[in-house]
Amino acid sequence: MVSFKLSSIIRDVPDFPKPGILFKDITPLYSNPAILEECVEEIRSQFKHVKLDAVAGIEARGFLTGILLARALQLPFIPIRKAGKLPGEKISTTYDLEYGTATIEMHVDCTSPGMQVLIHDDVLATGGSATAAAHLIKQNGAQVAGFSFLVSLSFLGGDQKLQSFGKPVHSLISF
Amino acid sequence: MVSFKLSSIIRDVPDFPKPGILFKDITPLYSNPAILEECVEEIRSQFKHVKLDAVAGIEARGFLTGILLARALQLPFIPIRKAGKLPGEKISTTYDLEYGTATIEMHVDCTSPGMQVLIHDDVLATGGSATAAAHLIKQNGAQVAGFSFLVSLSFLGGDQKLQSFGKPVHSLISF
Repeated sequence: MVSFKLSSIIRDVPDFPKPGILFKDITPLYSNPAILEECVEEIRSQFKHVKLDAVAGIEARGFLTGILLARALQLPFIPIRKAGKLPGEKISTTYDLEYGTATIEMHVDCTSPGMQVLIHDDVLATGGSATAAAHLIKQNGAQVAGFSFLVSLSFLGGDQKLQSFGKPVHSLISF
Repeated sequence: MVSFKLSSIIRDVPDFPKPGILFKDITPLYSNPAILEECVEEIRSQFKHVKLDAVAGIEARGFLTGILLARALQLPFIPIRKAGKLPGEKISTTYDLEYGTATIEMHVDCTSPGMQVLIHDDVLATGGSATAAAHLIKQNGAQVAGFSFLVSLSFLGGDQKLQSFGKPVHSLISF
């Protein structure tokens, strides 16, 4: 039911961020606290049989539902940030984009060894940033417990890419 | 009490983002769901006599406590984003930084006329981005109900600058 409600408020924006791309805009979700809460509860339910010690959210849109999810689970939230934003001791990883590369970072004191971390973002596209986040978590001595998204653009192959970690990959809806 | 707990987990990072600046790093707060929840409840209490229809959070760190606050108040959350990130119909404003300028944007359908909007960010410094956010809200026909921050760096004058709006300006702690 929540997937139906979420589908109904996501809007298609043609030619964003560039010509030929049909962008799935989930910002109307943030205007609707009731449906947003249902989405968070549904994600919690998807992982109810998975041991979780923390939720990592990917800047910036993954911060929104990521921290709500961490709150619902009463777990620490780990901000995975773009390069140069985190002030403390940190680790970095760089990954390929369609054109060029991107770097993301996390504070080293966000995880302890063996901690089971759920990686969250709003939209799964090619899986590049989620894969990079998983590498950061593992590089820091913690474990990836799974991947969670509001929306998966499955035609872009991100689901398949993340299967290689051997952990649950869930989205509320797929296109 | 919550201000004491928050003070105790904020850490000083010298020379970030550039030499001579002592950065107040609040990221340890996100590792502590109990104190984070207390902070959100305290902010809610600061505005309990103010009519609020929505909470606007400024990208990216203002998204974290901003959406938790919106959830606690059961209100819509308005993402105020950096230029080029929002896909729908939007308005923009540009403001001065120490060196150069910054542009922030919001979707026009995030507010309705007369809506009372609480503007939230994690840290109040000079007040440049909060002032710009307030201009966006007003430009879109809504009202600024107040300003909320976790931390105010009062020696930078942001509190005073925001007083010009004639609305409540609250922080959990001030330096």
